[in-house]
Amino acid sequence: MKLAILGATGAVGLDIINCLKELDVQFSELRLLASPRSAGKKIETPYGAKEVEAVDEKSFDGCTWAFFAAGADRSKRYLPHAITAGCRVIDCSSAFRYDKDVPLIISEINASRAIGAKLIANPNCTTAIASVVLWPLHQVFKLKKIIISTYQASSGAGTTAMTELINGTTDYLQNKKPTNEIFSHPLPFNLIPRIDVLQENGYTKEEMKVVWELRKIFDDDSMGISCTCVRVPVLRSHSESITIETEKEIDTDRTRSILSKAVGVDLIDEPHNDKYPMPLTSSEKFNVEVGRIRQSLIFGKFGIDFFISGDQILKGSALNAVQILKYVLGEE
Amino acid sequence: MKLAILGATGAVGLDIINCLKELDVQFSELRLLASPRSAGKKIETPYGAKEVEAVDEKSFDGCTWAFFAAGADRSKRYLPHAITAGCRVIDCSSAFRYDKDVPLIISEINASRAIGAKLIANPNCTTAIASVVLWPLHQVFKLKKIIISTYQASSGAGTTAMTELINGTTDYLQNKKPTNEIFSHPLPFNLIPRIDVLQENGYTKEEMKVVWELRKIFDDDSMGISCTCVRVPVLRSHSESITIETEKEIDTDRTRSILSKAVGVDLIDEPHNDKYPMPLTSSEKFNVEVGRIRQSLIFGKFGIDFFISGDQILKGSALNAVQILKYVLGEE
Repeated sequence: MKLAILGATGAVGLDIINCLKELDVQFSELRLLASPRSAGKKIETPYGAKEVEAVDEKSFDGCTWAFFAAGADRSKRYLPHAITAGCRVIDCSSAFRYDKDVPLIISEINASRAIGAKLIANPNCTTAIASVVLWPLHQVFKLKKIIISTYQASSGAGTTAMTELINGTTDYLQNKKPTNEIFSHPLPFNLIPRIDVLQENGYTKEEMKVVWELRKIFDDDSMGISCTCVRVPVLRSHSESITIETEKEIDTDRTRSILSKAVGVDLIDEPHNDKYPMPLTSSEKFNVEVGRIRQSLIFGKFGIDFFISGDQILKGSALNAVQILKYVLGEE
Repeated sequence: MKLAILGATGAVGLDIINCLKELDVQFSELRLLASPRSAGKKIETPYGAKEVEAVDEKSFDGCTWAFFAAGADRSKRYLPHAITAGCRVIDCSSAFRYDKDVPLIISEINASRAIGAKLIANPNCTTAIASVVLWPLHQVFKLKKIIISTYQASSGAGTTAMTELINGTTDYLQNKKPTNEIFSHPLPFNLIPRIDVLQENGYTKEEMKVVWELRKIFDDDSMGISCTCVRVPVLRSHSESITIETEKEIDTDRTRSILSKAVGVDLIDEPHNDKYPMPLTSSEKFNVEVGRIRQSLIFGKFGIDFFISGDQILKGSALNAVQILKYVLGEE
């Protein structure tokens, strides 16, 4: 099997390479593709130093599978060439997520829908992290309402956004004004309550992605979902404060019991011992942390509040993409 | 009128002095009281350099009013001495907030209840900031449910907590492990989803304060309130993501119109121009910023989502305390 990664030098691309190794995916060739300005660059991988090639229309010829991790525009541009070459694609961008015929997959939830698909969409990171915790609860208690406020790391906007936060913080501590190019305002010691473009309804696209994608992944349009997305001065791992209302009675003991056995989830819920989900502990970890589980003060027996933290580059993107490939390879 | 400030060297105490000047409160003497280890220290104030005195049981003799801003334990210890001396107290701690006979006051909401009171309680900072935005909406639309997730600055834990964040961030950027004494975990580039002690129901005291205090200030026990409190690596200003369900129909235009005229509130709601509430803009400002106002995707015509940011040392504590005094002096 010949594999290609488009956007191999980005945060997600690099972690796709790491996850291929961690999940022991076997292949005969790995093509690392990026824009011409990265061509010739050598990057360190678990498979040794590898040279990056400039992507072109022929890059996918002879490939069996490609990961697209270079943003929606490039996904749209190169998809026809990959498909024509007979190369199947797992796309980490939002380009095709809402196409009816494109399966939107979380490996723990609906991986079987990926079987046979030529194009598979990987969900938005905020959605992905929430979904692995919400899904096992949805199956038992059926979710009616989901209210989410996010705490999103700078790396969600790419590797250069992480650098902007680090450099800006250094400037701030030296009494210099932090500069900002990627973010609309300086992020050091600040919060930015807008991620992605505004929609007509006043929500951002990042917020609506969570609504659209959770419904599609869970195959349930009846769930009421609301989301507020906020960028925080954290380098890696998105966190989310979540309130749910359920159709069936729910309690904290059963919630903990279900989540302690859920695949892809780490129950970290001993707040009296200062153990709860945090970016500090969830970063570079495969599983999503969940804790601070409390009976809802609003929905009573039909609601739960909790807090999650998960590496949005791993389960939020690269890991899930590789898990999808691993599943399909095993099933087909 | 002779004034005293207990805890004059703390973050809140220092801002009480500034607010007295800003609000032009007239007094004949200002006693700056603190623990013995701060005694003799000179601090710069808008009234010139002033010496700090060690607090003792006689410190309030001859005083008309005192601000208590040294934590609940010291409030409990010194209240009897102030009252015996005939000195009225505005207490910024949580010591007496839940006593039935003690008025809990936000100057814009229920200041008249402070008239004649010997002891007046100043609300928790997270509550105070939310209340100035929620109150004008409550009066028109009647709030049924309030769901809050907070983004709380390090200074909420005092001046030394700000220093811990700054020093820890410096260490982090120099590849040293940040140390933590005030916070349970290092806060630089991290989040800590626990503030204050745990209650039996799994909520923290900080979270329950919002529930207890909003109900008391609004004099309405029927409101369903839920809160998740999270410490973020921000130096100053607390922010909150808030979802409300109302009894009467609510829309974004009327919400904006009401909040644009509300006392103590700055409507900053042009997200397409990247104008929204942020710690960067709300810090050291008297008014609380509100924006990102959207019709609820869950409660439809009976709900609104929004985001607020306010200086938790000013409206969240010092400013409100001085506003209470100013009001009472004008009315009695």
